[in-house]
Amino acid sequence: MARRRIGIWLIGARGGVATTVTVGLQALRRGLAGCQGLVTALPQFAHLDLAEWNDFVLGGHDIRDTTLADEAQKLHDVSRALDAGLISACKSDLRRIDAQIRPGVLLNVGSTITGLASDALRQVVETPREAIDRVQRDLRQFVESQRLDQLVVVNLASTEPRRETLDLPERWKDLSKLLDKPRKCPLAASSLYAIAALDLGYPYVNFTPSPGSAPAAIQELAVERGTCHMGHDGKTGETLLKSVLAPMFASRHLEVMSWVGHNIFGNMDGLVLDNPENKATKVTSKDRLLREILGYDPQTHVSIEYIRSLGDWKTAWDHIHFRGFLGTPMILQFTWQGCDSLLAAPLVLDLVRLTELAARRGETGLLTFLASFFKSPLGTPEQDFIRQFQMLQRWAAGPAPGATD
Amino acid sequence: MARRRIGIWLIGARGGVATTVTVGLQALRRGLAGCQGLVTALPQFAHLDLAEWNDFVLGGHDIRDTTLADEAQKLHDVSRALDAGLISACKSDLRRIDAQIRPGVLLNVGSTITGLASDALRQVVETPREAIDRVQRDLRQFVESQRLDQLVVVNLASTEPRRETLDLPERWKDLSKLLDKPRKCPLAASSLYAIAALDLGYPYVNFTPSPGSAPAAIQELAVERGTCHMGHDGKTGETLLKSVLAPMFASRHLEVMSWVGHNIFGNMDGLVLDNPENKATKVTSKDRLLREILGYDPQTHVSIEYIRSLGDWKTAWDHIHFRGFLGTPMILQFTWQGCDSLLAAPLVLDLVRLTELAARRGETGLLTFLASFFKSPLGTPEQDFIRQFQMLQRWAAGPAPGATD
Amino acid sequence: MARRRIGIWLIGARGGVATTVTVGLQALRRGLAGCQGLVTALPQFAHLDLAEWNDFVLGGHDIRDTTLADEAQKLHDVSRALDAGLISACKSDLRRIDAQIRPGVLLNVGSTITGLASDALRQVVETPREAIDRVQRDLRQFVESQRLDQLVVVNLASTEPRRETLDLPERWKDLSKLLDKPRKCPLAASSLYAIAALDLGYPYVNFTPSPGSAPAAIQELAVERGTCHMGHDGKTGETLLKSVLAPMFASRHLEVMSWVGHNIFGNMDGLVLDNPENKATKVTSKDRLLREILGYDPQTHVSIEYIRSLGDWKTAWDHIHFRGFLGTPMILQFTWQGCDSLLAAPLVLDLVRLTELAARRGETGLLTFLASFFKSPLGTPEQDFIRQFQMLQRWAAGPAPGATD
Amino acid sequence: MARRRIGIWLIGARGGVATTVTVGLQALRRGLAGCQGLVTALPQFAHLDLAEWNDFVLGGHDIRDTTLADEAQKLHDVSRALDAGLISACKSDLRRIDAQIRPGVLLNVGSTITGLASDALRQVVETPREAIDRVQRDLRQFVESQRLDQLVVVNLASTEPRRETLDLPERWKDLSKLLDKPRKCPLAASSLYAIAALDLGYPYVNFTPSPGSAPAAIQELAVERGTCHMGHDGKTGETLLKSVLAPMFASRHLEVMSWVGHNIFGNMDGLVLDNPENKATKVTSKDRLLREILGYDPQTHVSIEYIRSLGDWKTAWDHIHFRGFLGTPMILQFTWQGCDSLLAAPLVLDLVRLTELAARRGETGLLTFLASFFKSPLGTPEQDFIRQFQMLQRWAAGPAPGATD
Repeated sequence: MARRRIGIWLIGARGGVATTVTVGLQALRRGLAGCQGLVTALPQFAHLDLAEWNDFVLGGHDIRDTTLADEAQKLHDVSRALDAGLISACKSDLRRIDAQIRPGVLLNVGSTITGLASDALRQVVETPREAIDRVQRDLRQFVESQRLDQLVVVNLASTEPRRETLDLPERWKDLSKLLDKPRKCPLAASSLYAIAALDLGYPYVNFTPSPGSAPAAIQELAVERGTCHMGHDGKTGETLLKSVLAPMFASRHLEVMSWVGHNIFGNMDGLVLDNPENKATKVTSKDRLLREILGYDPQTHVSIEYIRSLGDWKTAWDHIHFRGFLGTPMILQFTWQGCDSLLAAPLVLDLVRLTELAARRGETGLLTFLASFFKSPLGTPEQDFIRQFQMLQRWAAGPAPGATD
Repeated sequence: MARRRIGIWLIGARGGVATTVTVGLQALRRGLAGCQGLVTALPQFAHLDLAEWNDFVLGGHDIRDTTLADEAQKLHDVSRALDAGLISACKSDLRRIDAQIRPGVLLNVGSTITGLASDALRQVVETPREAIDRVQRDLRQFVESQRLDQLVVVNLASTEPRRETLDLPERWKDLSKLLDKPRKCPLAASSLYAIAALDLGYPYVNFTPSPGSAPAAIQELAVERGTCHMGHDGKTGETLLKSVLAPMFASRHLEVMSWVGHNIFGNMDGLVLDNPENKATKVTSKDRLLREILGYDPQTHVSIEYIRSLGDWKTAWDHIHFRGFLGTPMILQFTWQGCDSLLAAPLVLDLVRLTELAARRGETGLLTFLASFFKSPLGTPEQDFIRQFQMLQRWAAGPAPGATD
Repeated sequence: MARRRIGIWLIGARGGVATTVTVGLQALRRGLAGCQGLVTALPQFAHLDLAEWNDFVLGGHDIRDTTLADEAQKLHDVSRALDAGLISACKSDLRRIDAQIRPGVLLNVGSTITGLASDALRQVVETPREAIDRVQRDLRQFVESQRLDQLVVVNLASTEPRRETLDLPERWKDLSKLLDKPRKCPLAASSLYAIAALDLGYPYVNFTPSPGSAPAAIQELAVERGTCHMGHDGKTGETLLKSVLAPMFASRHLEVMSWVGHNIFGNMDGLVLDNPENKATKVTSKDRLLREILGYDPQTHVSIEYIRSLGDWKTAWDHIHFRGFLGTPMILQFTWQGCDSLLAAPLVLDLVRLTELAARRGETGLLTFLASFFKSPLGTPEQDFIRQFQMLQRWAAGPAPGATD
Repeated sequence: MARRRIGIWLIGARGGVATTVTVGLQALRRGLAGCQGLVTALPQFAHLDLAEWNDFVLGGHDIRDTTLADEAQKLHDVSRALDAGLISACKSDLRRIDAQIRPGVLLNVGSTITGLASDALRQVVETPREAIDRVQRDLRQFVESQRLDQLVVVNLASTEPRRETLDLPERWKDLSKLLDKPRKCPLAASSLYAIAALDLGYPYVNFTPSPGSAPAAIQELAVERGTCHMGHDGKTGETLLKSVLAPMFASRHLEVMSWVGHNIFGNMDGLVLDNPENKATKVTSKDRLLREILGYDPQTHVSIEYIRSLGDWKTAWDHIHFRGFLGTPMILQFTWQGCDSLLAAPLVLDLVRLTELAARRGETGLLTFLASFFKSPLGTPEQDFIRQFQMLQRWAAGPAPGATD
């Protein structure tokens, strides 16, 4: 049977994570990489009819003047994160994919991100509606030129500054009207991309802490268009550990008095988060789950600092001060030394495979069974990683598409 | 309604854990302690008709010449583990309970433990059968004199040396015959106490890595006598973390290449484990679960070292070297600084409450729903802590005693 | 021979460090404490004619409504830092010393510190000159009533906010004129106390990062009055380690790329430093020495966070990213868990003993041989701890007072 | 003026350290590497007339069947320690140097090391005297064929098992007689190489914990032949930190109660040290200095474990439990993640440069001014790293060769 052709459209297509997705996908196709880090390669998902590595076609948006090859080289030189041999084996692929990357959207992304953009892009003036139209033209053109059966849009762009969205209309028809009024429309790029994709019926996954498809009106749009989406903020390191360790403290009735987490790293993401406005979005996402798992509010502190020399190596030190029997204070500390792009990239591939299958199965709206992949999963209060993973396993064990139930 | 009177019979009644159980129980009765560390005090178990702190009466066996008050003082002086005010508030209680502690059994406990015993006890010569009879007289006398409705026996004694038990008969009637033949009977004290308790129909819980009730023949005895039991090796610190973190690596398909754990502490348990024979029993128990959770065999190393100055503060450093996407090596390290007796004591109280309720509900044989409390839970392959805890929650949500089903 | 009577006048006399100095001095007198932590009790200083514990008489200033006994109890309850038995043995001493503590000065100490002061004190309106006069009356009265041969004033008060002092006159006669003009006088309390003491000829030691006697004009005053002083910012924990480890990297030509230090603690000092203005003063003091030792500027980050549950236990995590041969990046991390007041208090006693001896020997101006005690030693560029300690040893090996040279 | 030609003869010439010395030297010559990690490249040694990178010619002994290129590749593949581009730039150099490596000596090196040797070498039967003669022929042939002005022999071979050497004669003339009696001669290969070199008047440096030139009789030989030597055991990681941190505890009168050090790594050195006999030699060397610096005996524990996945990355966790004022226990922990070969290799180059200069200056016997480079420096009790470094600086500031004094 002829395989389906699945497009993966990456927002932030030349960032560290997207570059690693791109190089990694070539490595998987050529058999140059094992399946470490790929959740969908676990035996318990082997029976699912997931898309295969050869089914995927890559494209995307980016705002910077650079090339995939340069970014891959940087991951090697600064962070020893990608193998030199692998990069040179992929050179021509990277050049080909570069040609499929279109200029991104800068609306409401804040001064730090705008500062990274190409000169040409910074001079573009467009309303939200115009930006959406432009993005949709890019998506349609990609689907047509590549003869795709499906397209999954994934947001991997830098974190946008936190914005007040309290007044955002909750219905799509009301929000829609704002798109022509730049002054009144608080939506930032991540949400405009989401609207563009969902409106065309393409699934959308938000791997970043930016709002993306989270606003109620956009969720309504997804359901109306019969497509699916999920977010937000990929859970790759320190927060993954929180979602694993906090349930232990809760189950053992050990009272967490304080949980301090210091994160240091030196990649582009770190540079953007060094701006307090952007950082606020991220810290909220990293911090919230403790209260939800523990059922009370320990004192918490999360810091994220840009330390150039670390490159892509995100290092976290967490200090958990807890009280056991008879009120005795005890301490757990951990340090996590993980290569950020290499932790995130396989999860992006997993999310694309699972989302594509869910779409094929006809699921619409939020894909809550993907909760284990996110720091702040939309549509579910479950924050315990193992229980989230059980949600995924139950979904995987469920009826195949086309089965009557 | 008149409350039931429940005896708790502690083997190793003047050790660090038992002393903390004893002082802690007084503190709970007097409202001097919160419920941190007590699993059964969590809201999800509030509906169970568990015994209350005032229902319990304490007694036990010990092999050393010391007093509860002296041991409690040592926990304060050496380890800052018990509050001076609390100890002096309990002085008269401790003296009263001391009077309920009988001389223990030294059969096959190895030279290190024998070296700690009182002179009188070291001169006792008895067959396994005679030791069991003596223990049973002590238990019966305690039940009668205290007018108890139930008695739960808990093994908290030092870890026995590892012994070959391959030839142990699998049927109780065959094992029973060996009890009169000291030379042929490889059972150590922990199993003799288990036989003594179960044979009288009293539930038995083994909180140590010693064999206790694990041999098949003793499990058969428990079922024959219509009582219940569980073990073994209370999961209080480093291994608890392993059973929480290993499932994370497994679920994320991160390949654990090596897992090194170094444990240092300075209490009596540490002194006994400083003997390589006794340590072997413990290390096996701490190490096994990784293979079972991960499904493959990473290189592992577990060390336990006696460092006098640390007293009861068990400090563990774990270094986990794992491989992510594209084979990239990454590292998680943690240090755990926990006060051993204060981590173990509330679990002992939990196990007594849950076992007593299970016995009241008529359950017999292994109580596998208690798996989350043990490093090496008998009767179940489940090693993932959160799944083990779900077993406990499901049991707790089950039918109340007396319900028809 | 009759012993001399030496007064110790503590600014911040009921803070954590001062309370520990006070309780500790009683413990030393009664033989209830060993000499751990006391540099002057090392064998290499045994030949010096230092004042003995019984020679000291305590008094001081404080701004809060509390008692030494309450503060000592808090150090026990919150931080397990002082032994309950020791506190109760000192009860009457503490009450007696409380009577020697006078209301402090609030000029230019910032809103956080002012917020901690007693209501009465917050209503005092006084010029800098009036504050100095008031302090001098207190000092004189103490010296006379206690028939003291010498008085050493030590600043242990909370860190003041950083202030611009660029325009401060460099000569004492010019600075002196500003003291009557509150609007024009940028001096904060720490400097007013310094002026009060030095002007009377009493030695002054600044154990805090506040300016104290650092301004050139005040240094001139000390020399004019023939007395001595030193500062500033006691080196007790993370910075001590920096001054020990940085010389290692320098001597081995290992290039420090980044040095990140995160400090968390929960005592009064932490509360005050939680105000960014006050924190700025401290961070500068902790950070500067790296550049001075290494000879270049690695990226550095120092954070200090107030984490209530930690009480007096200052916990620091430092992550040092360095480059070895062929540019290979490597990592040293440390965590320091020290009880702040107990690290500082013996150094205060050491500084008093050494300063008193220096004064007796007729030394005037800055006592640079005390550099090893300070994060930012005045009057010397030496930041390598071992070399600083050699300065102390050389001084100690020098001619005794009264010797002809 | 024509440069001198200096031979470097490496025992263990294809091991990790030697391979890194070899690759590193090529990188330095070609300007492909900075001078990080090279002590002799510090400004304070710039005035010394040290040999330059182009002056050196490499040769050596090894016992294994392998090539420098393969070993360099392994350092890249397993440990990411050497850059792929650098290795391929050096390919032809490595092949040329391989041709200068002769078969080594296996006398008394123990079964683990012998097990690594080539089949041919394992069949060699020779007396100690014959082995020395063979080594001397190799050295002479190298000096002549390469027209060398000087040759420095450096021992980088795997650690030999600990042997009793109490009965070893203290005079060279007596020891010399044993060399023909294999049964009576307890000397291992490291000492035979030392004898071979020193007897020919070539300086010898022992970078390993093996005995080498330490026996008194061999020291006598060095003086008789008018040459110099030094050892032993290069101080690269955990012990370097001990020699820096222990003086801090001593100077602050903080009582070290226990110092635990766990070392894990997976290179060839680790494999050999996994044999308890070989490990004993190393542990003694790592442990001794604490007592010497502190002046008392804290409880210490040093473990070294072979963890395959770590390759050349030596990771150490140290836990230091100390007592401050009023006996309060506090904790310092550190983790060191250093690439062993890259820490050691520049020190080898430093030692060669400094030893060659000392020999040129006419120094004979032990070069104690090199103490800072060694875990167990011969001929000096000084263990404080900073004071050891001051010894080096004082030597460097001394009179130049040829100066009259």
